[in-house]
Amino acid sequence: MALASWLDSDEAALAAATPFGTVALALDAVRAGEVDRVMVPIENSVEGGVAATLDALNGGEPLIIQGEVLVPITFVLAAPAGTDRSTIRGVGSHSHAWPQVRGWMAQHLPEASYVPTLSTAAAAEALASTGGDRPPYEAAVCAPMAAEVFGLDVLARDIGDNAAAVTRFVVVSRPGSVPEPTGADKTTVVMFQHDDHPGGLLELLEQFATRGINMTRLESRPTGAAMGSYCFSIDFEGHVSDERVGETLVGLKRVCADVRFLGSYARADRRPVQATPTTTDAAYADARAWLHSLRG
Amino acid sequence: MALASWLDSDEAALAAATPFGTVALALDAVRAGEVDRVMVPIENSVEGGVAATLDALNGGEPLIIQGEVLVPITFVLAAPAGTDRSTIRGVGSHSHAWPQVRGWMAQHLPEASYVPTLSTAAAAEALASTGGDRPPYEAAVCAPMAAEVFGLDVLARDIGDNAAAVTRFVVVSRPGSVPEPTGADKTTVVMFQHDDHPGGLLELLEQFATRGINMTRLESRPTGAAMGSYCFSIDFEGHVSDERVGETLVGLKRVCADVRFLGSYARADRRPVQATPTTTDAAYADARAWLHSLRG
Amino acid sequence: MALASWLDSDEAALAAATPFGTVALALDAVRAGEVDRVMVPIENSVEGGVAATLDALNGGEPLIIQGEVLVPITFVLAAPAGTDRSTIRGVGSHSHAWPQVRGWMAQHLPEASYVPTLSTAAAAEALASTGGDRPPYEAAVCAPMAAEVFGLDVLARDIGDNAAAVTRFVVVSRPGSVPEPTGADKTTVVMFQHDDHPGGLLELLEQFATRGINMTRLESRPTGAAMGSYCFSIDFEGHVSDERVGETLVGLKRVCADVRFLGSYARADRRPVQATPTTTDAAYADARAWLHSLRG
Amino acid sequence: MALASWLDSDEAALAAATPFGTVALALDAVRAGEVDRVMVPIENSVEGGVAATLDALNGGEPLIIQGEVLVPITFVLAAPAGTDRSTIRGVGSHSHAWPQVRGWMAQHLPEASYVPTLSTAAAAEALASTGGDRPPYEAAVCAPMAAEVFGLDVLARDIGDNAAAVTRFVVVSRPGSVPEPTGADKTTVVMFQHDDHPGGLLELLEQFATRGINMTRLESRPTGAAMGSYCFSIDFEGHVSDERVGETLVGLKRVCADVRFLGSYARADRRPVQATPTTTDAAYADARAWLHSLRG
Repeated sequence: MALASWLDSDEAALAAATPFGTVALALDAVRAGEVDRVMVPIENSVEGGVAATLDALNGGEPLIIQGEVLVPITFVLAAPAGTDRSTIRGVGSHSHAWPQVRGWMAQHLPEASYVPTLSTAAAAEALASTGGDRPPYEAAVCAPMAAEVFGLDVLARDIGDNAAAVTRFVVVSRPGSVPEPTGADKTTVVMFQHDDHPGGLLELLEQFATRGINMTRLESRPTGAAMGSYCFSIDFEGHVSDERVGETLVGLKRVCADVRFLGSYARADRRPVQATPTTTDAAYADARAWLHSLRG
Repeated sequence: MALASWLDSDEAALAAATPFGTVALALDAVRAGEVDRVMVPIENSVEGGVAATLDALNGGEPLIIQGEVLVPITFVLAAPAGTDRSTIRGVGSHSHAWPQVRGWMAQHLPEASYVPTLSTAAAAEALASTGGDRPPYEAAVCAPMAAEVFGLDVLARDIGDNAAAVTRFVVVSRPGSVPEPTGADKTTVVMFQHDDHPGGLLELLEQFATRGINMTRLESRPTGAAMGSYCFSIDFEGHVSDERVGETLVGLKRVCADVRFLGSYARADRRPVQATPTTTDAAYADARAWLHSLRG
Repeated sequence: MALASWLDSDEAALAAATPFGTVALALDAVRAGEVDRVMVPIENSVEGGVAATLDALNGGEPLIIQGEVLVPITFVLAAPAGTDRSTIRGVGSHSHAWPQVRGWMAQHLPEASYVPTLSTAAAAEALASTGGDRPPYEAAVCAPMAAEVFGLDVLARDIGDNAAAVTRFVVVSRPGSVPEPTGADKTTVVMFQHDDHPGGLLELLEQFATRGINMTRLESRPTGAAMGSYCFSIDFEGHVSDERVGETLVGLKRVCADVRFLGSYARADRRPVQATPTTTDAAYADARAWLHSLRG
Repeated sequence: MALASWLDSDEAALAAATPFGTVALALDAVRAGEVDRVMVPIENSVEGGVAATLDALNGGEPLIIQGEVLVPITFVLAAPAGTDRSTIRGVGSHSHAWPQVRGWMAQHLPEASYVPTLSTAAAAEALASTGGDRPPYEAAVCAPMAAEVFGLDVLARDIGDNAAAVTRFVVVSRPGSVPEPTGADKTTVVMFQHDDHPGGLLELLEQFATRGINMTRLESRPTGAAMGSYCFSIDFEGHVSDERVGETLVGLKRVCADVRFLGSYARADRRPVQATPTTTDAAYADARAWLHSLRG
């Protein structure tokens, strides 16, 4: 996972890590068949859902998630070789990274001012650049590999305030075969409601509840149609081949204006999904056999 | 409907109207193959569910409801020929019938005392009997046909306080083919919960709610296992061949300890069942086709 | 509890045990101030809710339940002194009692036919009577005390098929002070819906569920207005002075056409009611204090 | 609303429009008492919730929303005086703005490449700057006022693909008096669950549903504690002084680990909130009076 450990957050990070400028462009390259699959950040334990990824998956030609990877988020303070920490007046970084190191900065560099940059990698790159204007800061907060790539010294390691911070990436491809169930799977869907108000969300969630399905992520995203018009991006436990998941999808498809299936794939943590006795495939098979006998 | 109009309420009425002593015996005769079908009272707009029928259907060898009939309940005041109304001191009838004529009695025979009998028909029969003890009353409250059968005079007609009172009968047979759907059907089931407390009832009702199914009758009946151990006898709109009904039955079968299917049959009032757009057979077919395509 | 142990089932039993002919008359005597309180059967682990009691409590001048008593149901086979069991051809009893001894009868008196009587006590009394017609049976199924009162021999004891069978009685008075909470209380209410179909039942049950209240009995009873028009008689854990119970009652009162409060009283089994941490009086007090601070 | 019309989206826009660098700093200035109130963007019909604002309101010293304003989003294509549209090779703008003009660009400047900038205002400012490096683009997509402030020519107006696009701003102050109810109000809260999984969301939404309260916005935001640990930021109809809103808040406070009240304020569209007959203040008053009478 060398690639992933290089990524620190969000779209801008990916832009530096791939030949694609943005997540949207990366996904378009998959759609166009230029590449078979890409890995894009979808969720961050500090910053939340990555809007650019969610929106790019929710619209356009359908794509499918094939897997997920959890990547710890680590930050270093990097500067050109020979920089003395006491001379740092400004620190450049992406606005998403800054809140994650605020505690360390308050303790170790309380006088330094923050300078926003387009990405954490861009903050490092500008320090390494030799031509043109000097950036208005002397050090960058970036991923360890960015410091290495751009030849900067690391003045401090692991400066993130939250040691458990992690970014979740998903591997995305064009639709085709769905990965085989492993017993520890997740499914991702986007639901578009018939009417706009989120009040109808209760009806959607009951489709999960009546089949004993646990959600692990719920994000609302605007459809763009009007203020207050949202769709819901949801991850939940189980695989599309599970009976209870299939029935939930059938229920959602009925009550929603539209449902976009974004894939079933193995959980990164490999934690098995436990169905209750009333929601196993066997329970469904028994119940269906009974119904079949009733209908004669 | 000569048979039905003769019946006025409950088990005792049936006992007089058929060769069988009780509803339970009538249903046992069907089970034993002695008769093909019987008509038994199941619900009364004044007295509620007929416990003897519900319990006899809930247990024993399975039986199936093939249809339903609604029969207006009418009562007459009957007495031996030549009886003068002013001489009536006591009135015999079944304890279920008496509350239904209490208003008329208070107005027209305020001095008469009530004498309970085993059935309304038995009250009439005892007045007609010529041998042995005289019954301790001079008139009976019974169905019109009972007065006719036992040769009594009708002193007053339609003496029921509630002109809209009606008894619902069901025609019951051994399991076999289910009647064809008519578009105006009902289905009857009995649900036995895994745990005893009625709190779990909410979970059962949600199985109906998420499929947009309307219930028309709900009765709790003790299972006999312990105080507070109940099963639920339920009528709801729709036919077992409807997709939404099938899915509801599958859901109930999964979450219940047991479900007994008691039949799908045409409604007596022929009122069509309206499915919402999200719960029609077409909506299910579309959603299932979509799921099928996902599973590829 | 000599009185209660004499009672074996239903209204007819009570009629023999008290100066009142029926449960309805007994409750009317309380309403009229003729007596301060009566004990009436409300629920039976074999036969279910006692319709006559439920209906008499649901309508008329309001009454309040002050307490409950659980009484084991025991049956004996009784006959005039000197009767030999081998000579028994018919057995008299109330139609509610007969199903409860069917197993014993099939084993010990398989040839005996069943003769319905107005009550189990009446079955015993007729055997003891010396004048007029002989009853068409030689033995009675009744409560032990009925055999004793009417001077019959007991040919067999504890012949009920279900040794755990029990009848629940409630003590009823005119409204006044509600019994103090004991920490192990029940509350009884009757709910009348705005519209007739039981579908609205889900909305009512959610009022309980959102406050973590457990129901222990639910009965539907017809209102008499029309076929399918039901009210719901419900027992649930907790006392009207509990915050969660008060809030549930406020919720029910809002969404129902009417709610009749039938009392809060100590449970017969003294089992304490456990509120979840989010539904204790303290949790309500904290939340209300917070709301008060918000409203300034 | 001159100030607001200048703002086009997100935190970066605000940074250019106010003396504060970021939304977080603006809100901190209110907390510190440096200013009485600020207006910050909270929701955008195209981009969704503004994460920086939501997170800054969810944590730190409590603040209160006093009102809301809806501001149409309009974009212009701006360039230094004398620029010919045919010479444009690159266009600078914020990554949130670019997707909103993609359609116009594809039609009118299909060859132009996109260059991300820190804000739309920064894109304009760099074009106006005379010293140092030239930006790697010839035109900017920004708000009309930004073009005016930085002395750029407007080459095209209203180039947003969605004419109905709008940003919702809220006016925020320190806690104190809540605005008086107007009959057309909204309330904003943040809910922190006891356990992490979104499955518990259903329980929270039922607190709204049982009181007939309609939500108008729901956003999940990570708490930062762990992947999958979310809080929910919700707007709903009604004022904290409404009974049904007060009861909903009491219910949420009980079942949540914490609830942060972010204010009740007049809706920007002045659309009156309609309570159902069962959820008016009068319905609550009646029900509470009844409960009071029961408790004696």
